[in-house]
Amino acid sequence: MTATEPLPEPDPELDRLYADFAAGHMTPLWTQIGDLMPAAPTPRAVSHVWRWSSLFPLAARAGDLVPVGRGGERRAIALANPGLGGAPHVTPTLWAAVQYLGPKEVAPEHRHSQNAFRFVVEGEGVWTVVNGDPVAMRRGDLLLTPGWHFHGHHNETDHPMAWLDGLDIPFVHYTDAGFFEFGCDGVTDDSTPDVSRAERLWAHPGLRPLVGQGPKVNSPIAAYRWEHTDAALAAQLQLEDEGYPATTDPGHAAVRFTNPTTGGDIMPTIRAEFHRLRPGAHTRPRHDVGSNVFQVFEGSGTVHLGDVAWSVAKGDLIAVPSWVRWWLEADEPLDLFAFSDAPILERLHLARTHTPEGA
Amino acid sequence: MTATEPLPEPDPELDRLYADFAAGHMTPLWTQIGDLMPAAPTPRAVSHVWRWSSLFPLAARAGDLVPVGRGGERRAIALANPGLGGAPHVTPTLWAAVQYLGPKEVAPEHRHSQNAFRFVVEGEGVWTVVNGDPVAMRRGDLLLTPGWHFHGHHNETDHPMAWLDGLDIPFVHYTDAGFFEFGCDGVTDDSTPDVSRAERLWAHPGLRPLVGQGPKVNSPIAAYRWEHTDAALAAQLQLEDEGYPATTDPGHAAVRFTNPTTGGDIMPTIRAEFHRLRPGAHTRPRHDVGSNVFQVFEGSGTVHLGDVAWSVAKGDLIAVPSWVRWWLEADEPLDLFAFSDAPILERLHLARTHTPEGA
Amino acid sequence: MTATEPLPEPDPELDRLYADFAAGHMTPLWTQIGDLMPAAPTPRAVSHVWRWSSLFPLAARAGDLVPVGRGGERRAIALANPGLGGAPHVTPTLWAAVQYLGPKEVAPEHRHSQNAFRFVVEGEGVWTVVNGDPVAMRRGDLLLTPGWHFHGHHNETDHPMAWLDGLDIPFVHYTDAGFFEFGCDGVTDDSTPDVSRAERLWAHPGLRPLVGQGPKVNSPIAAYRWEHTDAALAAQLQLEDEGYPATTDPGHAAVRFTNPTTGGDIMPTIRAEFHRLRPGAHTRPRHDVGSNVFQVFEGSGTVHLGDVAWSVAKGDLIAVPSWVRWWLEADEPLDLFAFSDAPILERLHLARTHTPEGA
Amino acid sequence: MTATEPLPEPDPELDRLYADFAAGHMTPLWTQIGDLMPAAPTPRAVSHVWRWSSLFPLAARAGDLVPVGRGGERRAIALANPGLGGAPHVTPTLWAAVQYLGPKEVAPEHRHSQNAFRFVVEGEGVWTVVNGDPVAMRRGDLLLTPGWHFHGHHNETDHPMAWLDGLDIPFVHYTDAGFFEFGCDGVTDDSTPDVSRAERLWAHPGLRPLVGQGPKVNSPIAAYRWEHTDAALAAQLQLEDEGYPATTDPGHAAVRFTNPTTGGDIMPTIRAEFHRLRPGAHTRPRHDVGSNVFQVFEGSGTVHLGDVAWSVAKGDLIAVPSWVRWWLEADEPLDLFAFSDAPILERLHLARTHTPEGA
Repeated sequence: MTATEPLPEPDPELDRLYADFAAGHMTPLWTQIGDLMPAAPTPRAVSHVWRWSSLFPLAARAGDLVPVGRGGERRAIALANPGLGGAPHVTPTLWAAVQYLGPKEVAPEHRHSQNAFRFVVEGEGVWTVVNGDPVAMRRGDLLLTPGWHFHGHHNETDHPMAWLDGLDIPFVHYTDAGFFEFGCDGVTDDSTPDVSRAERLWAHPGLRPLVGQGPKVNSPIAAYRWEHTDAALAAQLQLEDEGYPATTDPGHAAVRFTNPTTGGDIMPTIRAEFHRLRPGAHTRPRHDVGSNVFQVFEGSGTVHLGDVAWSVAKGDLIAVPSWVRWWLEADEPLDLFAFSDAPILERLHLARTHTPEGA
Repeated sequence: MTATEPLPEPDPELDRLYADFAAGHMTPLWTQIGDLMPAAPTPRAVSHVWRWSSLFPLAARAGDLVPVGRGGERRAIALANPGLGGAPHVTPTLWAAVQYLGPKEVAPEHRHSQNAFRFVVEGEGVWTVVNGDPVAMRRGDLLLTPGWHFHGHHNETDHPMAWLDGLDIPFVHYTDAGFFEFGCDGVTDDSTPDVSRAERLWAHPGLRPLVGQGPKVNSPIAAYRWEHTDAALAAQLQLEDEGYPATTDPGHAAVRFTNPTTGGDIMPTIRAEFHRLRPGAHTRPRHDVGSNVFQVFEGSGTVHLGDVAWSVAKGDLIAVPSWVRWWLEADEPLDLFAFSDAPILERLHLARTHTPEGA
Repeated sequence: MTATEPLPEPDPELDRLYADFAAGHMTPLWTQIGDLMPAAPTPRAVSHVWRWSSLFPLAARAGDLVPVGRGGERRAIALANPGLGGAPHVTPTLWAAVQYLGPKEVAPEHRHSQNAFRFVVEGEGVWTVVNGDPVAMRRGDLLLTPGWHFHGHHNETDHPMAWLDGLDIPFVHYTDAGFFEFGCDGVTDDSTPDVSRAERLWAHPGLRPLVGQGPKVNSPIAAYRWEHTDAALAAQLQLEDEGYPATTDPGHAAVRFTNPTTGGDIMPTIRAEFHRLRPGAHTRPRHDVGSNVFQVFEGSGTVHLGDVAWSVAKGDLIAVPSWVRWWLEADEPLDLFAFSDAPILERLHLARTHTPEGA
Repeated sequence: MTATEPLPEPDPELDRLYADFAAGHMTPLWTQIGDLMPAAPTPRAVSHVWRWSSLFPLAARAGDLVPVGRGGERRAIALANPGLGGAPHVTPTLWAAVQYLGPKEVAPEHRHSQNAFRFVVEGEGVWTVVNGDPVAMRRGDLLLTPGWHFHGHHNETDHPMAWLDGLDIPFVHYTDAGFFEFGCDGVTDDSTPDVSRAERLWAHPGLRPLVGQGPKVNSPIAAYRWEHTDAALAAQLQLEDEGYPATTDPGHAAVRFTNPTTGGDIMPTIRAEFHRLRPGAHTRPRHDVGSNVFQVFEGSGTVHLGDVAWSVAKGDLIAVPSWVRWWLEADEPLDLFAFSDAPILERLHLARTHTPEGA
C-alpha cells in the first residue's frame, strides 16, 4: 500500500501530540497502516532450507553433551526461522525440531496444551507412550500427541534415534493459551508392542468401534503407518496410469492425514500431508495464506520458493512463509512429508490460495 | 394412553357432525388420539425371523423360473414383515431382500434416490458396478450403492450367488421422494478387479486423497472388506483380554461402518454395524426407537425379541420393530451383521434408547 | 417406469413359488418395482383445499357437542387428505387441524415426542402454556410447542377461539417414535402476560442471552409475533421498490421462521414460512420433494396445483403433495402462512426442487 | 515450570555446539522451555485501563492536526498495551482504537481481510457505508464491517464524532493473512437513512429472508441497535426479579451479539457482548484463556484485574490479558460493552475458563 496523500508536515504541535500518545500508551494508525495492513501478506519469516546433513550431526553432538531429563524435558533442537529474530519458530505459528534420543535413554512424561506430532525420517526403536499407550516409532510413520495427552519416549535399542517434532508452540505462546504439567519421570508403560492399542481400536478403514462414537477433537489414530501411506500414494499413481482421476497434479499423488471421527484434520491447529512426485513431475506454483513446512522423506528434487530454487535431498527441511510462491519438482521419485497451520486459517476463514497458472 | 374422561354419549347431532366431518375430509383428534399418540411406540410391524434355510431355496427356485432383465430389474425377494399387511417392507422404513444372480447373469444398470447396500453372507463371483467402478462381492463384505449412483451386477462364474440387499425403499416411498432412471442394459465396465477404484483411493485408515476434500453425503468407500471388519472385531476382544476398554459389553465386540469424510453413518438413512459375541456372552437388553435388522453371519445363538427367544443360525434374518426389547446371546462364537434406520431418527432428534438394566 | 421386458408367463410352478413366497412372508421385487420405485414421485396424497368457511362452523358445532378434557385432550379437527384413505393426515408426514376452544375452556397439559406449532388466523384471548410459560395467542402469531414440552391452553375470554395446529404426528407415527405423557389437568400457570418469558429472553434480533449458549434442537422463541413478520415482509417489498434484491420473485416477499441458535428450521421436522404477494404477482411454478401446506392469512388469489386452479380466500388451507407442480397468484395483496416437512427431506439428503421455467 | 534437574555445566564444547546451532538457525528447546511452555499462561501483555477523559481530548487534538484521507485512511488512535513494546495492539490478538471524524469529514472506502466493528459510546451523525449500504451510527450501537467488505465513513453534521474501532489486526498480522484494497475516494452512497438495508432485511427476531438461506461466515446484521440491546438486558433483570433464571450471575444481565445464520459469533475471530450490572452486583472472578476488552458505556464501578482494583467510568477502556483473574463490581447501574478473541480459542479448542469460586 502506497500512501497517495502526504502525511502531515513536521510540526511541533504534532510532535507534542505524538509524545502525548506515547505517554498515554496510544499509537496512531495513520503512521502504521502500511506495515500493519499491506496489500498482501509481507511475512517477516523467510523461506529457508535446513539440511539433514547438518542437523543430524549437530543433534548427535548434543546427544553427547546434553542429558535428557526433567527440566529440559527433551533433547530437541528447534529450527529458528532466520527472519524471526532468533525465536525458535520455523514459521510464526509452527515449531519444527529434531529430537534425538540416545541408546536406552528416556524422555520423561509430561503434557501440555500444545498439539504435537512426530515424523520419522529414519531409524526405529523408540516407543512414544501417549496417555499410557506405547506407540512404536518407525521410518515413515506419523505419530500424534494431541494437546493435553501425557507422553514420554524411551529408546529400547543400542543406537540413537532422531526424528522430526512438529508442534504449534509459537501459536499457543502467541495466544497465551498454554498449560503444562509434569507426569511420571520414566514412562508409564515400557512395553514394546509393534502396534499401539489406539491403532488396534481405530486404524481400520471406515470402521469405528462402537465404544467410541461422536466427533473427537483430535484423531484417535496414534500412528499413521508408512505401509498405509505408501500404499495410498502408490494406488493414486496406478489409477492415474489406468486413466482415472486420482492425483492432485499429473504425476503428483497426495494424501492428507485425517481424524476418522470428523474427516477433518488430525488436530485443531496442524495439517499433515504426504506428497509423492514421479521423476520429472512438478506441482503447480501456488501462494497459500499460512505457513507450510516440508521434509524430504526420500528422493531428491528442487523446491522453488519465490524466485529461488533449492536442491533438496533426504531429510532436508523446508520452511515456506505465508503467500510465498512455491512449487516442487522431482528429479527422481520424490516423497515429502508436509505440515502446515492451514486448520487455523481455515477455521477462522482467513485461508486463501492463489495458483497463478490456474487451478 | 387410557381415556380418563368419557367420550361424548351417542347422540344424533354428534353423528351428523361426524358425517359432516367425513364429507369435508376431516377427522376429529379426540377419537383417534390413543392410536395416534400412544404412551410409547406400538408398532404394527412385528418381530420376526426369516430362515436362510428357507430363503435360499426359494430364491434358487426363482432363479429357475424368473429371468433377470429390464423391467423387473432385479431378482430380489423382499422380506415382508407379517405386521405390515403384505407390504414388501421388513420394517416400516427398511427393505431387506435376498437377491439371486445365476451363472453368467447380468442385472442391468439403473439408478434411484433410494440408498442401497449389499451384504454377502456366502459366495463370491459377482461384481457390482457402481458409477462405472467394478466392485467384487465376497463373503463378509459390505458394498455400498448410495442414492443416485448407477449400478448393475454381473455374475462371472458358473454358480449362482445370493446376497442381502438393504435399502430405504419403504421410507423413500412413504416420503414420496424417489426418482428412478434406467442405465445401460449390461454393465458399463465388465472387468473383474479384486479391488475397486474407490477402495484404492479411499480405503486407507485415516488417509484421504487430496483430490477428495470436504464432507461427502455418502461414504466413498465402495466396499468394506471382511478382512478389515474381522480384524477390528478380533482386536477389540484381544484388548478386552488384555484388560483395556474396547468392547461394547463384556465379550461383545462391535464396529460401525462409517463415512470417512464425516465420521458419521455410511449413508443418510441407513446405519450398518457388525457385532461379534464370544460363546456365552450376551448383549444388554435394550429398547431402541427405530427399527433394526440383523443377519447372522456365522455361529449360532439366541435372539430375544420382547418375550420370545428365537434360536438363530447362519444366514437367518431378524426384524426388530421400534421399542421392542431385544438382546442377543451366543452359544458359540456369534457374528452378526446389523443395519437400521437410526440415522433417520437421530438426524430428526427422535432417537431414544432405554436399557432397563442400566447402561 | 415402464417394464420393457415381459414378466414371466403365467405358469403353475410360478404360482406355487409365489404362494410359497407369501407363506414365507416374502414378496418379489419384480412385480412391485413400478409402484415402489417410480421414475418420479407418485404420491397417494392428493392436492386439496379446505375452506375456512366450512371448517370454522364445523369446529363451532363440535364446540357445542364435544367437551374438552383429559382423554380426548384437544378439540382438534384434522384435515384428512382425500388420497390417504381416511387417515387424519393432511399429507403423509404432516398433521393440520383446526383447534377450537370455547369461552373459559381449558385444554389440559400433556407432552409428546411430536413437534407442534399453532398459527392464528383470527382471534385472540387464549394462552398456551409451554413448559410453564404462558404464551398469548393473537392473530398472525406463530407459537411453538417443540417435542416433549408440556403444554396446555386456556381461553380467558367469553368468545371461542380457533386456530391452526400443525404437527408431525403422521411422521412420528410412521416411524414408531412417539411417546406421550399426561401433565397437570389445568394449566400450571394461568397468568395472562402479553409477552412470554421465552420471548423476553430470546426474541431480540441477533442477541442471545449469555445463559443460553450452544445450539439447541428447537427454537427457544416461543412466539413469532405478527408485528415482526409483517414488518419483515413489508421491508422486502420496500427494498424491491428501491431497487435492491430482497424478494424471492418480483412482488413476492418471503421469510422463514428460524431457530436463532442455529439459523436453521424452528424444529427438526417442520419448516414454517410466511409469504406475501403484491396484487398481480405470482410465484414461479415449482415441484418440491416433500409436502407443503398453506393457509391464506389475508387477501385472495389462486393456487395452481398441478393443472387445477383453486381460488382461495382467508383461512383456506391447501395441501400440496410431493412433486406436484404448484404456484400462487395474487388478486389482491395476498398473505399466506406455509409449513412443510422440508427439514426431513433436507437432513436426509432426499430434497429436490424443480422449477420448469428456470430458477 | 521449574527445572528440577540441572542444565549442563558451562563447557567449551557446549559453547561451540550452541554457536553452531546459532549459525545453523537452530535453537535448543532445553534452554527455552520454561518461557515457551509455562505451567499456565504468562502473557507479556498487561492489564491496563485507558481513560476516556484522556482519549477523547487527544483524539480531538488529532482532529485539528491530522487530515483524514487516502494513505493514512483513518484518524484512528490505537491503544498500545504497555506490555507489548509499543506495538499498537490492545492485546496480542486485538486492536482497539478511538476513531475521530470531524464535521463533514469523509474517510475513504477500502477493504481488508481484517474483521472490524465499531461501537458508539457517545454521539451520532456519522454513516458508515458497508458494501454500499449506509449504516447510521448512534450511541449504543454495534456496527459490523466483516472482512473484505468495502467501507468508508462520512460525518453529516457540524460536530465531530468519535467511537471505538475493534479489529483483529494483530492476529491477521501475526498469521500473515491480510489483504488490503483501496475503494472509492468518497463513499459509494452518501444517503443518510435511519436504518440500513441489511437491518431491514435481517434484523427481525428469528426471521430470515428466503433470499438469504444457508450459513454465512459473518453476521449479515450490519447494526445491532441500542434499543434492542437495552431491552434484552432490561428483560433479563425483570425476569430475575420475577424469579426466573435469566441472568448470568445475580444482578448481572448479559447478551452476546450473534450471527443469526449460525447462532454463533458475529465474525470468525471476534466475540462481542454487552453486560449490565445492578448497583452493588458483581461478576464471579474468572480466568479466561484469550484476551478481553471492555468499554464502560454508562455508570461506574470497579474492575478487578489480578490484584489491582481500577475505578472506571463512562468511556474507559480496559484490557484483560489471558488468564488474568478479573471481575466487575457496580457502584451504580453499570453497562459495559465487551469484546474478545474467544472465537479464535474456541474454534481451535484452546479455550479454558477457571472460576476459582465455582461456576
